[in-house]
This record gives sequence, structure tokens and C-alpha cells, in this order.
Amino acid sequence: MSAAPHLLPEPILVVGSGLIGTSVALALTRAGAQVLLSDVDQANLDIAVAAGAGRPLTDGDVPAIVVVAVPPRRAGTVLAEASAQWPAATLTDVTSVKESVLAEARALGADPSRLVGGHPMAGREVSGAAGALASLLDDRIWVVTPLPESGIEHVRNVHRLITSCGAQPVEMGVREHDDAVALVSHAPQVLSSALAGQLCPADPDAVRIAGQGLRDMTRIAASNTALWTDILVSNAGPVADVLDRIAATLDRTAAALRRTASGELVEESAVADLLVDGVNGQARIPGKHGAAPSSYREVLVQIADRPGELGRLFTAVAEAGINLEDIRIEHVLGRPSGLVGLSVRPESGDAMIETLRARDFDVRG
Amino acid sequence: MSAAPHLLPEPILVVGSGLIGTSVALALTRAGAQVLLSDVDQANLDIAVAAGAGRPLTDGDVPAIVVVAVPPRRAGTVLAEASAQWPAATLTDVTSVKESVLAEARALGADPSRLVGGHPMAGREVSGAAGALASLLDDRIWVVTPLPESGIEHVRNVHRLITSCGAQPVEMGVREHDDAVALVSHAPQVLSSALAGQLCPADPDAVRIAGQGLRDMTRIAASNTALWTDILVSNAGPVADVLDRIAATLDRTAAALRRTASGELVEESAVADLLVDGVNGQARIPGKHGAAPSSYREVLVQIADRPGELGRLFTAVAEAGINLEDIRIEHVLGRPSGLVGLSVRPESGDAMIETLRARDFDVRG
Repeated sequence: MSAAPHLLPEPILVVGSGLIGTSVALALTRAGAQVLLSDVDQANLDIAVAAGAGRPLTDGDVPAIVVVAVPPRRAGTVLAEASAQWPAATLTDVTSVKESVLAEARALGADPSRLVGGHPMAGREVSGAAGALASLLDDRIWVVTPLPESGIEHVRNVHRLITSCGAQPVEMGVREHDDAVALVSHAPQVLSSALAGQLCPADPDAVRIAGQGLRDMTRIAASNTALWTDILVSNAGPVADVLDRIAATLDRTAAALRRTASGELVEESAVADLLVDGVNGQARIPGKHGAAPSSYREVLVQIADRPGELGRLFTAVAEAGINLEDIRIEHVLGRPSGLVGLSVRPESGDAMIETLRARDFDVRG
Repeated sequence: MSAAPHLLPEPILVVGSGLIGTSVALALTRAGAQVLLSDVDQANLDIAVAAGAGRPLTDGDVPAIVVVAVPPRRAGTVLAEASAQWPAATLTDVTSVKESVLAEARALGADPSRLVGGHPMAGREVSGAAGALASLLDDRIWVVTPLPESGIEHVRNVHRLITSCGAQPVEMGVREHDDAVALVSHAPQVLSSALAGQLCPADPDAVRIAGQGLRDMTRIAASNTALWTDILVSNAGPVADVLDRIAATLDRTAAALRRTASGELVEESAVADLLVDGVNGQARIPGKHGAAPSSYREVLVQIADRPGELGRLFTAVAEAGINLEDIRIEHVLGRPSGLVGLSVRPESGDAMIETLRARDFDVRG
């Protein structure tokens, strides 16, 4: 899960002991690297040190790589300061926006030949050092955005850093990255929050009949608001572009619905087109291991919600020797029970159903 | 799970052998009721009969209750026809919009004293008789929308029908129901489709870095487009109202982001307000068993994705005698592994962590 540590220059300084910074430090320590830590907040630093993420930076330390893991609004400044303080160090960051952060770092004098942007795709709803995990970056994509001036040895160092953390480096252009995260992460956050916000003034009975769809769509609305304000403002242009496109789609759909309802014009095709586009777009999202989601078959099992039922189910699945590609659990309100969706490769579907039925599970094909 | 069958008048005719109609028929058969089936499509009817949902309707049958389970655009007509054909039968439907369907039924001559609307909250992405389950309605909320003229015995019959299916009746006004489902189900469907549709023209690299948040938000975009076109058009006014409010929120957010980025005005507070509203709205969604989601503690466990690991995990949980309130699985691309979130009552959190650590699970508090 890690590169040979001798290829990774040391020591590595991680600035910022939040969720991502501490997880990166824990992963590097796990890989055998010497890790230095700093944070403006002594309490955060203490938690990270106590967790075994590294030792505090002291005067005279000369890091070979500096990983800046502070919020976007501070990252440019911290990169520029590190560039001045350690004139040979490779400089990278882990913030979720790249253009504004890297432009600010350069404007403040950071050496572009040593500067290589980075963004590990491993967000969580929790934040802070206490939520950090050595395994948080395992198998994750970590986007690398070199500048035109970035020296090849510094780009290589960042690749080694990433593989040492157990993640997968993927190179992208700075603007390409920002447009991509606006689409797949930042605008969805706004959408989730905007939808969840509609529930504030809603009738309690309306909220009571909410199903799994609404739950899924509002899960990320519970994220850290201060961090997300910072992220959205730092990637304002690309996010606003996506929001405009979605708002225009909603406006068009609302207008088509109203005209159809009033009998003024029948515009069902506009509504149908929206839904068909949605089906096609959804199908582009890779499944686990990068496979298309449509390449799996979902076997549904109704289980009683009592201790032991899930254990019995997953033990039966394991004993059948069938690997699960995905799992989904639908909850129902009121009395305890649940519907478990087990996604398997199509050729394993019949065997899975047969195995579970033989053990008296309430299963359907 | 079922009412005493002798309180439920028989036979019960279910018109329409789709997912919901066949599931209702299977649940009623399970409860011991005599069930009659009809469908304009002989193939659907054959599947439902073969599944044991009931026997085909024949001339001379006199149903005591008629359950109309056809798409919204057909439901009003079918209710009116049933009203004329069986002048004593209780008439109900299971469509997801109530005002337009019930108004159309009345306009076509359905007897309002025998007419009681219904809507079981049990959608799935799959459709058709082949997806039906006797247990689909178990523990689900089933909204009942009586008319002012509905006779009390007919309202009671619909309550008995619902409890016989294993579901929970909840009474609401017709317009109150339509506004509620527009908010918690229909507008979220449009939002999910609008977001997923943005992925159609996107760069493959952008789609590749999609995380769990985007997956969750676009899951329902894979739903049946013909059925959803019909639902959205049938509930056009309430859905358009919610879409307008969300589009306005997105417009305001995009404008605030652009003005902040350009330095014209610092409007971070507008962005922060949106996110805080989202947190508050999300917190209103009931958890499993109706408890507030914030009343649970989530214990995270990193597991290797190999047969047996999930079985070992859930067996350990069961042996500890701790009941799970919710389960969430985060996938990562690339190499196989996953992060499992186990939600438990707060007082069980420490015991859960201790139990799992004692069995060498990679767990954090």
C-alpha cells in the first residue's frame, strides 16, 4: 500500500492538523517516513501528535517536502511563507481548489518551480484531527496539478508522497481540476444544502413522509459550514457556472410543468428530456473499482432489524464465496425492518439468490 | 404484521399489476384476503398471477374494495369506471398525486362518498410486477387522503387495507399531501436528474473523480422516466413552486459567489446562510424509527473488501448485543476497501468501539 520509503525525501512537514492534514501525516508515518507537524492551534497539534501523526516542527528542521493542509483562504499565504523559509523544499497543498490558491501563492512570491498543487478526493462530513484516519487516503484518487514551471523532480516527489499515503495520483490542469470539482463536488454541496434548507419551514407531516431519496440527497448538507463557505468562495466562478446551468434547467422544467398543467401547451417532452438526460448522466458515474454501475445486478433481501440478522446475511454471502460490489440499505419508518440491496457481478446473481433462499432469507431476483 | 382478515371486506380487486399494485396484492394475499387482479396488459397480469398475487377478475365478481394502482394519468378514469361498475365498493388508489387524480375521478362521476385517496410511501428505482415484494409495504407510511364527503366506513376500510398490508396509515389533506410529496419526493427527483444531466457533456476525468456525495445525489436519477414524467405533470403546480424556490436559491448563491470573487462585494454571509439552513433542514429529517439523526453516534470501521469481512463485522456487532440504528458504506475507487459507518445509540458507542477493537477491526471513535 506504500512506496518504498527511501524514494520519498524526508522529513516531510504537514502544516495544518485538521482532518486531511492529520490523515496524511498518519499515512506517511505508517509508511515509515519522518513527519513534522505544525498548526496555529496548539490544541489541534496536540491531538495530532498524541495520535502518532508525527512530532512538532522545531527551529532548525529543514523539511524536504511541505504539505500545506489549511483552509483555501490561508493556503496561498502558507505556501509562500514555506517557499521563503525552506528554499529547496517541494511545496504542495491539499486544498480542494487550485487556481485561486496557486495564483495567490505565486503572487506572494512562492517559487513556481517547486510548487505542485494537489487535492486528495477524500472528504468526509466530519472534520478536525479527531476524525483523522491513517487509512483515509487508501485507494483514493489524489489529483496533482503541476504548474507549467514545476520542476520534474518536484512533481515526482508529490507523486511519491501520494503513493506513500496509499492513494492514486491523477494529473490534471489547474482550471480543468477546478471545473471538475465544481461539477462533481462543490455544486452538489450547494444543491444538497438548498434542498435541505427547504425543509426548515416545512410542515412536520411533510418531513415525516420523507423517504430514502431525500435522505440520500441531503446527507452532505450536514457538512462543516465554515469550511464549505471557504471552499465555495475560493472556487466561485466555476461553481457559479454550474449553479447557473442547473437553475436554468429547474426554471425551464417549472415553466414546462406550469404550461402543461394549465393546458396552455403540452410540454411533457421537456420534462421527459430532463429525466432521460439524468438517466444518461447517472450512468456515466463509475461504480466501485471503476466499473459501470449498470454492470452489476442488485439482489434485494428483506431483513428483520434485530441483532444478528445482518451478520447472518453477510456470513451467508461470504460462505457462498461471492464478492459484493456494492451494498445499499433502505430504511423504513415505524416498525424495525430494512431492505438490503446486494450488488454482485451479473454472473453471480442467480447463485446469490439460491444461496440466500436456501438459508430462509426473504429474497427476490 | 397484519390486521385480523375478518375485519377486511373481501374480495379486494387490485387494478394494475405494476410494482406497487402487485406488491399490495401479494401483501393482502399474505394476510389471508381474497384478491382479484386486472391489468390492461395481459403479460403483467400473468406475472402477477404466477407470483401468487391473486386470481384474474372474472365477470360476476363483486369486489368490496377496489385498489387502483395505475399511473396517475389513468387513475381518475379507472376510479370512475370502478365506481359505476360496483356501486357499493370502497374506492381507493395508490398514486403519488392526489388532487388531480381525485378531481378527475369526481368529474367523471365517481361517487365521492366511497372515494378515499391513498399513497403508500414505498417507491423503488425498479418498476413492474417482476420487482414486486409481499414485504414492500411493511412498516411504510401509507398516506390516506379522505374527501370531505368520504363515508366513515369507507375510510375505515382503507385503514384496514393498509394495516393488512403491514403499513402505517397517516391521514392528510389532499393539497397538504401534494405539497408534501412535491417537497420531499418530486422536486428532489427533478434536482437529482438536473444534476446528473450535467454529467452528460462532462470531461471523463471530471466524472472519474466523483465521490460518494455525487453518487448519493444522483441515485434516484436512474428512476423510470415515463412514470416520473407522468407523476411530475400530475403534480405540476406544487412541484413547480418548490423548483422555483430552489432555483431562486441557486441564483442568489451564484450571484453572491460572483460578486465575492470579483471583490465587488463580500457576500460570504449569503453563502454561509445557505449552508446553515441546509444543516438545520437536514436535521429535521427523522432517522430510523422516527428518532432525530443527531441522536445517533457513528462508529467508523475501515474494512478490507474480501468475502467474509462484512460477515465478520456484523457478527461481531450482533454478538456484542448492540442494535444498529443505521449503516452507511463509503466506497473508494481503485483498490478494494471500504469505510463502514455504524450508527448506534450514543450510550452504546464506547462499547461498540471496544468490542470491534478487541477483534482487530480498524475502528475509530
